Amino acid sequence: MKIGILTIGNELTSGRIQDTNSALISRAMQQQGWPVAAMLSVGDDNGAIRDALEFLLARAEAVIATGGLGPTADDITTAAIARAFGLSLRMDDSVLAHIRELFAKRRLAWTENNAKQAVFPEGAGIIANPTGTAAGFAVRREGKIVAVIPGVPAEARRMLPEGVIPLFRKAFPETALHVETSTFKLFGIPEAAVDAALADADLAGLGLGVGFYPNFPENHLVLTARTASAEEAGKKLREAASRVEARLGKYIFAHGQETLEGLVARMLTEKRLSLAVAESCTGGLITDRLTDIPGSSAFLERGVVTYSNASKTALLGVPEAVIAVHGAVSAETARLMAEGIRRLAGTGLGLAVTGIAGPSGGTEAKPVGTVHIALADGEKTLCRHHALRWDRRRNKIAAAQTALLILLRYLLGDVGDNR
Amino acid sequence: MKIGILTIGNELTSGRIQDTNSALISRAMQQQGWPVAAMLSVGDDNGAIRDALEFLLARAEAVIATGGLGPTADDITTAAIARAFGLSLRMDDSVLAHIRELFAKRRLAWTENNAKQAVFPEGAGIIANPTGTAAGFAVRREGKIVAVIPGVPAEARRMLPEGVIPLFRKAFPETALHVETSTFKLFGIPEAAVDAALADADLAGLGLGVGFYPNFPENHLVLTARTASAEEAGKKLREAASRVEARLGKYIFAHGQETLEGLVARMLTEKRLSLAVAESCTGGLITDRLTDIPGSSAFLERGVVTYSNASKTALLGVPEAVIAVHGAVSAETARLMAEGIRRLAGTGLGLAVTGIAGPSGGTEAKPVGTVHIALADGEKTLCRHHALRWDRRRNKIAAAQTALLILLRYLLGDVGDNR
Repeated sequence: MKIGILTIGNELTSGRIQDTNSALISRAMQQQGWPVAAMLSVGDDNGAIRDALEFLLARAEAVIATGGLGPTADDITTAAIARAFGLSLRMDDSVLAHIRELFAKRRLAWTENNAKQAVFPEGAGIIANPTGTAAGFAVRREGKIVAVIPGVPAEARRMLPEGVIPLFRKAFPETALHVETSTFKLFGIPEAAVDAALADADLAGLGLGVGFYPNFPENHLVLTARTASAEEAGKKLREAASRVEARLGKYIFAHGQETLEGLVARMLTEKRLSLAVAESCTGGLITDRLTDIPGSSAFLERGVVTYSNASKTALLGVPEAVIAVHGAVSAETARLMAEGIRRLAGTGLGLAVTGIAGPSGGTEAKPVGTVHIALADGEKTLCRHHALRWDRRRNKIAAAQTALLILLRYLLGDVGDNR
Repeated sequence: MKIGILTIGNELTSGRIQDTNSALISRAMQQQGWPVAAMLSVGDDNGAIRDALEFLLARAEAVIATGGLGPTADDITTAAIARAFGLSLRMDDSVLAHIRELFAKRRLAWTENNAKQAVFPEGAGIIANPTGTAAGFAVRREGKIVAVIPGVPAEARRMLPEGVIPLFRKAFPETALHVETSTFKLFGIPEAAVDAALADADLAGLGLGVGFYPNFPENHLVLTARTASAEEAGKKLREAASRVEARLGKYIFAHGQETLEGLVARMLTEKRLSLAVAESCTGGLITDRLTDIPGSSAFLERGVVTYSNASKTALLGVPEAVIAVHGAVSAETARLMAEGIRRLAGTGLGLAVTGIAGPSGGTEAKPVGTVHIALADGEKTLCRHHALRWDRRRNKIAAAQTALLILLRYLLGDVGDNR
């Protein structure tokens, strides 16, 4: 079964927005074993949408369209598809009630144009949107199917596996192999090096699909088994996992849906360990990530963003003399920051980061990207030095990731050979 | 003159690589006043390339194709286009000499497959590649033109303005309109309400394109003028801006490329005001955003993430009794947090946020999404209460946005009617 992808919106054809949905969808289709015949983007225009649908339906059994399902006048996808298929439009009362409910819950004022999102082509099946007001729909013609979902990437990302893929599997049952994936999340190794490390692993020989997905600062490796049975898929993926772990184990920090902050939060909670964080160049990004996890108040006592030298002395007890001699960005200062925040917060662990995010502030001895990370537990203090090579935002992201990874490794009992 | 964009490569239709060339090219075309009729991506396949070209040439006067110009066997774009146009292939000796020179200069070993990059359809015009070995080319048919450039984004980015656009302007001299856009960034109003508020503004009557772009928690409104002169565009956009400001002024916090944190940083720097931030539910997101701005160390003295009650007392001087009586999430606590961080940090301003991000922790009196924000300047303390209605992550984002907006309004002298 071949797939066509249609993304709709003037923001795409004007280049104002980078289309990420086409890549998201093609990756998901690839994982199902359904090749993508073509991906088309057109503006919010009746004729363009009609022509694009015809082009794709001539080359694919199923089409996924995104975008143009909003309440405003420029959102014409539903009407354009109904017109292209010669269908009239009808209001769906249960969807309308659901949208009104969402508005009431969010205490938003209701305006009549919102009712537009409850209008669908006659005979369309509704595809539920669990997070937004724009429901999707699917229409059929001559054994082919067109599924339409919103363009908002977070909504599309969820409706694809929950709504569209099950629909396609049901509509084209002969193509429904058992599909199972294994995801490995890596940090500290470039994509090309992952590829090279796996050159002799012969994953293709196991009949597995191999995908690399950079997700800065992480690289995700996704193996896909398409087999007749769940048993066979499990067997192949287990064999593949042992080959991957043997070659790349030290770069893998998480599997599947796990996240770095989620693993840290779970370990801290399980061990009933409390944490305090002192950040300089990361600017609060470490605590921002940790507090994305519900229940983080159980272990996170406090964070401080000590951007000035005075605050490093006042909030962490780092002696002025240490900063004067070694500098605010130094192993000595990082160590005293971690020990200071731990002592003053009365927590089991203290984590500290100090560095130069850039673009200015670097010197020959301490170039932009220099980062010192320290972790204190009351008995010992680990210190690590890193030289990052990105822009300001990505240096922050990479430094926060490195600090959380050092914390995770410590919690797993893998403390390395440092002081 | 309309444009068609064709990106070629199996790495695109499999989702392995995010196509960024289409957005790059469409933005450049938009700037020239040439609307993009459609953007198509297909794999490295003769039939697919031929069909895609036909589709685009039926809807556009000029097509830009990228990708598949490399030396390896899967790079078939040149041959596919020659075949689609019924042209034979010929070797270009001067391009061949140039490639050989590049190899010698970079001390790369020459292999015969590299000569493939000097082969073009007969009659094609060569588009020089100043940075790589893959030259582009252009072929014409029935008054239309197809320009082909490499898929490597850095090479495409340079060949577009230096090679392709001059070629198109020469081929279609009458079509160069002046294009100018105005962007309004809004917060606190849903997309549909923006649309409704503009219903009587008759922006279309001014001949302007109107686009809405949700970018949580912001909504962006973009007006586009396509006119014969810069003067006319400026006049239309100024008239439109006054209509938009009259209807939506209170929701607009930034224009064009401005960001909320960028505006706050500029105002603080200009006024030589220092800031300290006390965060609870936002978890460091406010200082993370502020420290994304280079030079933020000039005004940001410190931030604290006081997740525990004890830390609110220790780092902010909030009396235990106030927390016990009013709760950690209360106007009283927010006020004392802002005043406390300001006093202890010795800064001009203290900004504080306390709230319940969810999903748990809510009560009937203080449901999930309850947020109190306070801003202290030593003379008075502003307090604001908000009831957010999102999930945990989006409650954090919306609370941080609201706090930064209160700070921006204060810096602009717009303090409202609060205590």
